[in-house]
Amino acid sequence: MFKFELIKKDPCGARLGRVTTGRGSFQTPVFMPVGTRASVKGVTPEELKDIGADIILANTYHLYVRPGHEIIKGLGGVHRFMHWDKNILTDSGGFQVWSLGKMRRITEEGVSFSSHIDGAKSSLTPESVIEVQEAIGADIIMPLDECAPHQSGRPYAENSMNLTLRWAGRSKAARTNPAQALFGIVQGAMFADLREESARATVEIGFDGYAIGGLSVGEEKHLMQEMLAATTPHLPEDRPRYLMGVGTPEDLVYGVSEGIDMFDCVMPTRNARNGTFFTRQGKLVIKNVRYADDPAPVSDGCGCYTCRNYSRAYLRHLYMEREVLSPRLNTIHNLFYYCSLMKEMQAAIEGDRFGEWRKRFERDNGSSGL
Amino acid sequence: MFKFELIKKDPCGARLGRVTTGRGSFQTPVFMPVGTRASVKGVTPEELKDIGADIILANTYHLYVRPGHEIIKGLGGVHRFMHWDKNILTDSGGFQVWSLGKMRRITEEGVSFSSHIDGAKSSLTPESVIEVQEAIGADIIMPLDECAPHQSGRPYAENSMNLTLRWAGRSKAARTNPAQALFGIVQGAMFADLREESARATVEIGFDGYAIGGLSVGEEKHLMQEMLAATTPHLPEDRPRYLMGVGTPEDLVYGVSEGIDMFDCVMPTRNARNGTFFTRQGKLVIKNVRYADDPAPVSDGCGCYTCRNYSRAYLRHLYMEREVLSPRLNTIHNLFYYCSLMKEMQAAIEGDRFGEWRKRFERDNGSSGL
Repeated sequence: MFKFELIKKDPCGARLGRVTTGRGSFQTPVFMPVGTRASVKGVTPEELKDIGADIILANTYHLYVRPGHEIIKGLGGVHRFMHWDKNILTDSGGFQVWSLGKMRRITEEGVSFSSHIDGAKSSLTPESVIEVQEAIGADIIMPLDECAPHQSGRPYAENSMNLTLRWAGRSKAARTNPAQALFGIVQGAMFADLREESARATVEIGFDGYAIGGLSVGEEKHLMQEMLAATTPHLPEDRPRYLMGVGTPEDLVYGVSEGIDMFDCVMPTRNARNGTFFTRQGKLVIKNVRYADDPAPVSDGCGCYTCRNYSRAYLRHLYMEREVLSPRLNTIHNLFYYCSLMKEMQAAIEGDRFGEWRKRFERDNGSSGL
Repeated sequence: MFKFELIKKDPCGARLGRVTTGRGSFQTPVFMPVGTRASVKGVTPEELKDIGADIILANTYHLYVRPGHEIIKGLGGVHRFMHWDKNILTDSGGFQVWSLGKMRRITEEGVSFSSHIDGAKSSLTPESVIEVQEAIGADIIMPLDECAPHQSGRPYAENSMNLTLRWAGRSKAARTNPAQALFGIVQGAMFADLREESARATVEIGFDGYAIGGLSVGEEKHLMQEMLAATTPHLPEDRPRYLMGVGTPEDLVYGVSEGIDMFDCVMPTRNARNGTFFTRQGKLVIKNVRYADDPAPVSDGCGCYTCRNYSRAYLRHLYMEREVLSPRLNTIHNLFYYCSLMKEMQAAIEGDRFGEWRKRFERDNGSSGL
């Protein structure tokens, strides 16, 4: 059912591809807007389609805690629940459990934790995470992993990486629904040889696609780049590669140039709610008083609904007044910017001009190629 | 420019009419969604049109305080500012100033008050309120009035009513833009003879339409009904009648049966944000646990976007999780319900069956005709 076609590879390493699931196809490189609780904050599925989103991400942990996977299953699955008929990927909850810090305990069996809502004791195992995700019903699901802190020393990082590998095997064995694609997750903290070992061993178990986890978790940028470089050569060309939780527009461009096909990040949606817009000329902080009477759109020439219809002055007014429309209009622009960036990169790879495109992007953006 | 045609009058007293401004026409009876700060909370102008809204209300006081009427004027007026090209009515700010309680002082000249935001001293006079509304640029504007408390004793109510009349005359004299319709406001607290006197004297000054203010401010329902009955016989048939700040669906039906043409109220939008839906069978409080796994729409057969696409279970989930999409989807339903109710009443008057329609409404709604 699940298929990945590598359509074209740029000399720089950027890949144009196509992912096909039972739900439908989408081109890569792709950005997946985050809909943590089965809702991309403030926007409807129709708007997501207008924005150009092809696949979104939802969080297993959050949906497991509330409203509960059995309720979603009973209502016909997450697509029907949230009224989105395109692809959905659910993460495993590993990252969220990791974020709980002292509220969780990791053993060979799995993770036990206290709910972030009411402190109720709960646990997740590789098997239960698959079961929960089968109930939720996303098109692409992820195995439980341990996301080791970036400061991990070598013994911890190595043990953690090996635990994630054992969990990966159990996850694959636990899977009962072949209609859902299951990706493997490469870990290894900030050790290049562990990253390589993790990549090789994960590929040996064999998954529909490969994710790179534990990056963009606070480490310095050059470390993320080194870990990426240590990983991708050991991933098969004919499977999609997903860089989890990344990142800024610059990170996406960098990732694509390193052969990454899929990305997700809360940055465009969270920054939107905080009044920060992404534009080709960098960030625009709408609360700045200079925009109080500015009739221009956030970004000249931007084709999003927000830029076509509203001035910076109005968007500032909505933001300052905490109007409910503010996060929505801001989110529409930022997601449009992210999704358009991916489509531009697809076209550039297609047209054999990705390297040139990237140079112009970095010049416009005032970044120096990281 | 401004025109009101009385198309048909039902034997019960309900009126079908048409208001025409330089901006366009709409049928009455009409409900005006409230967009306090030049935004109907959570919904776009396109959605308001889908909902069936023909005219919305914005608040002069709020826009005067922030972002300021000069900024709105500089940006081409409130329609362009908020991207809504249909009719807008701005209230005078009198009710908001009244709500400030101890923070305001009323004199013959006008009202001085401390801003609800930073306590800065400011003032409004009948003349400045017209100037502010001319800058904002709505299609229908209102004169400054004093909204006397419903518990007012007779001397206070009489003085206040007379002050409002003098302010009405000054407002009419201050007006410079004939393209904007100016309505008069009838006051008189809970004294039927003062209501009659106010109506007669306001009509004598002469306005494009007549509003009834100072009702639905905490008084008992029967008092509102008595004041309405004391007022409407003294208003001209050939001008629209606007019952300010009213009300529940039952109030709207009652008002229409008493010959009211225009209504506004925060109830559908505010209740939506608090998770309460209006339906033909009464209110539905979405947080109720019985809806946790309910696949039904809020209201069977409702044609709104929310009911066509989302279950009670999902709407409850969004509400419980305080998702930004929640107030939006809830608002769409409630405004659709209100606007559809008005259109049903228009059709019933048109078809000479308003009395019958009203009986069925009251039966469905479990109300006893108030």
